[in-house]
Order: sequence, then structure tokens, then C-alpha cells
Amino acid sequence: MPTKTSTTKARGGIDLGGTKIPTVVVDGRSKVRGEARRPTPTSGGPENVAAQMAEALREAAEAAGVEPGALVGVGVGSPGEVDGHAGTVSQAKNLPGWAETFALADWLAKKLGTAVKVGNDVQVATEAEFHLGAGRPYTSLIGIFWGTGVGGGIVLDGKPWLGRGSAGEIGHTVVKEGGARCPCGRRGCLEAYAGRAAMEAKAREENQAGRKTDLFKLMKKHGRDRLTSGIWERALAKGDELAAELFDRAVRMLGAGIASAVNLLDVEAVIIGGGIGVRMGEPYAKRIEDAMGPHLFSDASPPAVRVASLGDLGGAVGASLLVKT
Amino acid sequence: MPTKTSTTKARGGIDLGGTKIPTVVVDGRSKVRGEARRPTPTSGGPENVAAQMAEALREAAEAAGVEPGALVGVGVGSPGEVDGHAGTVSQAKNLPGWAETFALADWLAKKLGTAVKVGNDVQVATEAEFHLGAGRPYTSLIGIFWGTGVGGGIVLDGKPWLGRGSAGEIGHTVVKEGGARCPCGRRGCLEAYAGRAAMEAKAREENQAGRKTDLFKLMKKHGRDRLTSGIWERALAKGDELAAELFDRAVRMLGAGIASAVNLLDVEAVIIGGGIGVRMGEPYAKRIEDAMGPHLFSDASPPAVRVASLGDLGGAVGASLLVKT
Repeated sequence: MPTKTSTTKARGGIDLGGTKIPTVVVDGRSKVRGEARRPTPTSGGPENVAAQMAEALREAAEAAGVEPGALVGVGVGSPGEVDGHAGTVSQAKNLPGWAETFALADWLAKKLGTAVKVGNDVQVATEAEFHLGAGRPYTSLIGIFWGTGVGGGIVLDGKPWLGRGSAGEIGHTVVKEGGARCPCGRRGCLEAYAGRAAMEAKAREENQAGRKTDLFKLMKKHGRDRLTSGIWERALAKGDELAAELFDRAVRMLGAGIASAVNLLDVEAVIIGGGIGVRMGEPYAKRIEDAMGPHLFSDASPPAVRVASLGDLGGAVGASLLVKT
Repeated sequence: MPTKTSTTKARGGIDLGGTKIPTVVVDGRSKVRGEARRPTPTSGGPENVAAQMAEALREAAEAAGVEPGALVGVGVGSPGEVDGHAGTVSQAKNLPGWAETFALADWLAKKLGTAVKVGNDVQVATEAEFHLGAGRPYTSLIGIFWGTGVGGGIVLDGKPWLGRGSAGEIGHTVVKEGGARCPCGRRGCLEAYAGRAAMEAKAREENQAGRKTDLFKLMKKHGRDRLTSGIWERALAKGDELAAELFDRAVRMLGAGIASAVNLLDVEAVIIGGGIGVRMGEPYAKRIEDAMGPHLFSDASPPAVRVASLGDLGGAVGASLLVKT
């Protein structure tokens, strides 16, 4: 078995996203030694999703030259309601057929032959950026994960703030009272304007109402069944008007929602991550910073706004931090 | 000099509000022994306001049967930018001619012959409710002070969260992106819809545009020069349509803004205080709670919503807590 000394303290990390499952194997210093990305199943149930997660982990372990069973353990960052002690996940609404409670940690532990810990996806990604990434210079920050939905994680005085277990839902900040319907069913949430899923629904609606756009042609051309961040980026690069309009609106709403959170918490920094956030990078972080400006109450001391520096593997690296060595 | 034993550890507390200056003298167990309320000057500058504060304190001390100079000290809860160490206040925009830095603690200390401490008005009121009032059963809460403006204070894990010094500005949560102009100059803030000053400006505008209302008749009849909480209450009791409409809107926006803060922080409780909050009491706290409901992300575990139990003296009692005994 090819166990190198550098991977004797190796840990796995799986970031269970609504679209993809980025997965890593890191060494004792949290350096990525192997990585894999699998698409999230769009049908089936928790077992189908978990099987895909196990495959991704095996692939990342192989790339790192280590057997899954030889890992100290595997951490999972999951959406939905996560019970870290029980290792269960319920109400994962962005995942197929995952309303009921599923014993994800036990299922994966049996499949992989090592200990598995589950944590909140956004929280582990925030802690990864805080300890290892763009958040390192700061003691208080908000992590914004701009992707299929809009998630948030909070670090205050060097420690995660979880509230009663459900803190950080910045995507459900009301930025427009009485406004657009959010995928969560409520009205006027930030996610209703900036989440990839909500933006796709809006684009589809406008397109069906006769509005011209290349978004769906690009989607078909690239063999996708949804408007991935890459498709949006291509459409924007080609000057697609509808895409530009929807992104302008998303940026405006992100500016308002994030500024509101900063007015409330007066943190030192805002870290922009997530599938779209990382792909759009610095230029969009700057646009969001500019959109925050007019709403910041203490405008003489704005927070630093930075792109998540661990990129789209931040969530997986953060998940690996759940494993204590 | 009539110094009773029960007031040998007496402290003063002054709550410098945009409309009134409620003031107390409390004993060693923070029980109110004397109180006074003076109107906030609407013209002049910091010295005029400070002179009125000194008068209020003298009056409260007299009611408590103690000389100001015999107090252990006096605490002041102030709006604007407060420097607690220097004892200065600047940028108090709701007060007349108070943009520059004024050495409030020194000025009052000389006038009263005792030590004076200055703190943020909303923060001291929040701590008063947390330690002595409606917030006592909880370890994390948000205090909402609904009056001339809309202020907020935060307690997390038993400790005030101040951020870099400016946390708690829930009144400047954007509840309607691109919405109404706020007295702070920004757009769509909660305070633009729910602050007494903004509601008065809107009522005046509607009235001048021909909309019927008894608000301004009631104001004149009661010898006021602005729409006090009492005038609004009278108009609502008489079924004034414009007053009801503006209060409905304020409640809706408070619901959205407070729910957003709860979605972010997942605190155990929300305490509603401030001039309007206390006067409108339980029925309106219930209405705000109902308005929050549709926006709460973790709707299975809503926070407790309570009226500030120290009433309109909470800010003054909280200010007295600044004095260490």
C-alpha cells in the first residue's frame, strides 16, 4: 500500500454542494495532496448522493497516494440541518429527495473504513478561510458563499458564532420587503436575487416571455442542464444583455445585504467565496464592495472585502479541519 | 445634607435622547430612587444640551434626597460617536449643532461635582435590559430601540458585541433596496420607514399633498412642535387612516429588518424598547413578532420577542451601570 510518510496524518474533506462535490485529501499541515470533483446527483436520494461522495473521496485519496482506510478521518461540509454529534443531515433542500434525517457519517464511515465527521458547509468554509485563507489577518469576519444559494458564516473575536445552531443565514436577509419569491419560499431575500438557482429561474422566465438571451443556447452547446457559473461567465463575456442585467441586480442586492450585516456587526472583513464568488473573483468582489459603499453606516471605516483565497476547494479543506489529529 | 444610608452608593444615569432626557438616581442595587425628564433642546449647541442634562440630574437627585456631588458618579448614554475613554461625543446628528467633538464628561463633571462616564445610548440600554430587565432569562439577544430613530444593541454569549465600536446599527439595515430616503441620507434603511422622525416627514409630505389626517391638528392642540409618540398614539386610537397606514408600514419593515438580524445571528431573544416601542407596548411587540414570522429562516425556533421591561427609564438606568461602584 503506497503510504508515504507525508500522508501518514492525511485527512479527507468533502464539500457537499448543490451542483458539485469538491473533495480533497490534505496532509498534516492542511496542504492539498489530492483532489477530485464529482457532480451532485440530481435525482435519487441521500444514498445516491453519499455514494457519489465516497467515489469522490476515493479518487482524491488515489491522487494523494493513500488508501481511504488509512486516513485519520474524513470531514464533510453539508447543507441542510446538520447534527454534528449524531452525524446526521436532514432538510437538505438543494439535494435530491433529502428531507428526512439521514445518518451520513455512519454510512460513509462504513463505506470508507475511517471515521467521518459532519459539519455545516458554510461554517467549515468560513473557518478554512479564517484559519488558512484570506481571513487570516482578521479577528472578526463574515464569509459570503455566493453560489447555487447565498450562504454566510460568522467569526467574531476569533471564534465561530453559531447562535442556537442556525446563525449565518445572510442569504435570507430581506433586501426588498415584498420583493421576489426566493427558492426558500419567502419573499425579498438576498438569495432570491443573487442565488444561481434564482437567477436561472428568472432568466428562464424572461426568456420564455420573449426576452433575447444566449444563456440557454450556451447551456445546450456545453452539454449542461443548468446555467452553471461557467455558462453565466461565458454569456457575460459575450455581452449578453439579460445576463448582465441579472448580475448587476445580484451585485446591487449583495451590496445591500452585506452592508446591512456589516452595519449590524461591524466586522473587520468580508470574504467572498462560493462557486460564483470564486469564479468571478477580484473584479466582482470590487463591484460588491462598491455596491456596499452607499449603504455602510460607518462609511469612514469600511471592512476589507476579499475573495476567498482557498478557491473552490476551501469548503473541502474546511471540512477536513473537522477531523481532529 | 439629607444623605440617607440607602443612597450612600447612589449613582446617576442620564439618557440623552433626541426628544427627551430621562434621568435617574439609583441606589446600590440599581433601584430607581429619583427620576426626572427634561425635553432635549432643539436649538443651540452641545453646551445648551449639557446644561439641560445637568438640570435633569439635579432634579432626579433632589427627588432621591441626595446632592449630585455625593453621587459615586453619573453615567450618560449618548447618541453619536462616543469615545468612552476620552468622555467625548461627536457627530450626534439628532442633537442641535453637535457635529464637532464635545468633552461631555468633563463639562458635566465640573458642573455636577462628581465623576462622569459616557457610553453609547443604545448599548447601555441593551445592557440594562440584559442585566436587569426583560433580557434576564437569555444569554444572547438583540435590543431594538424604536423611537426618533431605530437603534440596536447586541449581546452574544452574555457579552456586548461592539465590533470595531460601531456595531448594532440595525436601523440602517436595508429593508428595501432603492427605497425611501432615510434621515441618515441613505436609501431603503429600516429607519426610513420606522423612525419617528422619518414617519413625521412622510406624514407631513402626504398631508401637504392633500391627504387627510388629524395628526397635525392633534400636535397643535397638545402644544407640541413635532409628532411625539403620544400624538401618534392618540391619532391611532381615533382611527386616523394615515397614522394607521404609516404604523402598518413601520411594523412590516421592523418585522423584515429584525428577522434579517435574527437569520444572521440566531439569538434567543429580541427586546423591543425605545420611546415608541415602550409606549406601544405588548400589542405592537406582538404585531412585530407576527411581521417577523414570514421572514424567519429557522421558523421552527423563533426567538422570544419581549417589550423592554425597564420602560422609558431603561436607558437612564443602563447609563448608571457605566459607573463602577
